[in-house]
Amino acid sequence: MQIAFQGAAGAYSEAAALKAWPGSEPIACDRFEQVFSAVAEGRASHGILPVENSIGGSIHVNYDLLLQHELPIVAETELTVVHNLLALPGTKMSGIKRVFSHPQALAQCERYLHRLAGVEIVATYDTAGSARLIKEGHLADTAAIASARAAELFGLDILQAGIQDFSDNITRFILIAREPTPLGPPDKTSIAFALHNAPGALFKALSVFALRDIDMTKLESRPARGVPWEYVFYADLGAGRSDVRCSRALGHLEEFAQWVRTLGSYARALPLSRAGIVAEQ
Amino acid sequence: MQIAFQGAAGAYSEAAALKAWPGSEPIACDRFEQVFSAVAEGRASHGILPVENSIGGSIHVNYDLLLQHELPIVAETELTVVHNLLALPGTKMSGIKRVFSHPQALAQCERYLHRLAGVEIVATYDTAGSARLIKEGHLADTAAIASARAAELFGLDILQAGIQDFSDNITRFILIAREPTPLGPPDKTSIAFALHNAPGALFKALSVFALRDIDMTKLESRPARGVPWEYVFYADLGAGRSDVRCSRALGHLEEFAQWVRTLGSYARALPLSRAGIVAEQ
Repeated sequence: MQIAFQGAAGAYSEAAALKAWPGSEPIACDRFEQVFSAVAEGRASHGILPVENSIGGSIHVNYDLLLQHELPIVAETELTVVHNLLALPGTKMSGIKRVFSHPQALAQCERYLHRLAGVEIVATYDTAGSARLIKEGHLADTAAIASARAAELFGLDILQAGIQDFSDNITRFILIAREPTPLGPPDKTSIAFALHNAPGALFKALSVFALRDIDMTKLESRPARGVPWEYVFYADLGAGRSDVRCSRALGHLEEFAQWVRTLGSYARALPLSRAGIVAEQ
Repeated sequence: MQIAFQGAAGAYSEAAALKAWPGSEPIACDRFEQVFSAVAEGRASHGILPVENSIGGSIHVNYDLLLQHELPIVAETELTVVHNLLALPGTKMSGIKRVFSHPQALAQCERYLHRLAGVEIVATYDTAGSARLIKEGHLADTAAIASARAAELFGLDILQAGIQDFSDNITRFILIAREPTPLGPPDKTSIAFALHNAPGALFKALSVFALRDIDMTKLESRPARGVPWEYVFYADLGAGRSDVRCSRALGHLEEFAQWVRTLGSYARALPLSRAGIVAEQ
């Protein structure tokens, strides 16, 4: 497996890929869009994408990209995120004037950053890329929020470990491929659908699953592009696509939805235990 | 009315406040959190907050802050957002090496920015603040994405107007106050609720509104902090809180929800017409 991921070596997406699929070859991409094109054009067999974080919520850009492309989800995995404050060796906390990181990592360390008075917070495109920036630019007054692996890769020191505001910070990743061949027996299905804007429309849509005892593990609304205040819905169902209840429910939904699309059917990841989480760094 | 807003003079929130409530006094705050404290501590009579954009979706941080505080929503308003590329007078497009703006504005101009080859995109905390940064730092190689009003306030030129990817880019703002005194006759109610994690729980929750013919104009799920994969729901209902259908539906919801909270009841804003939008700059 060659797995395309967004970010630099040392990124959390790369760590998630290597943990779930040991021995696979990670391929770094600058942007999420390029993860999709790497898979579509055959430069990678698979692509890994963060879609949801237990603190910050959905990563909407990836849901939008899933709809724009025809690359099915074939697996999912979860990773506990541990953020660290990294700096050039020898840097003291008192010497830090700026902190670089991705906006989501900054948001996940908000309380911690609040206590660092007089420090400028700078949003970048990448956690591991922020670490690289410090190394390459010899930025002695700057720290990055990134993984312990990024510290190792770029020869930085960990000034402070585990600085995220909530210890149970878990990110869910999906794996995409060109063909809808799930990596394990599918018992979960991700779909997207649009409804005509009418009272009770969403209630009716949910009823096709509730009446067939299909659990919905996620429901998210996103604005439909170009049509103010109309929404597209993303849902995760607790049943495989070939389960007869699931195919009947989706047929039922198609009777009145504007459109329905299956984004993939795959094996549910074992949820990370909350107690005794082993920190993935 | 003194209306606290996040951002610098020239921000879209300020423009929305002045358009909806002419003659009010806008009070600039660095962070959304400070908009809440300005109202709570009486330094402002009201606070204005963007909560949703027709392209980018919900502004989650403000939903989270609404739950953390006890400041009710008393009105809402909408503004069409027109982004412009601003630079110091005399700057040419070919001289631009960096573009500063708020991540949401950058995302709303993504296609446009893609065409500017070799330009570094820098996320900042603010659209109007980016314009000020260019002015104060005499940054001749840098452009900001901000409003036409910011150009005027900071003496910058508009290199290119209306650079957002979608012309119908509308932001919805809410107005908060200390007391639940709506500015107009309330026909809309915003609520938040949490459900026990059980199959069909959301379907049951929506039924209390559907069975009483109450329209739901928005439904959003947010991760519950500190409990991985449990969710809090935000919903907008098409009925005033004192409407007997609404109070019965909320009573019904309380029978089985973990908790239910009314965030405010207020007069619905007239939707901005899609055809012939008059650009607010």
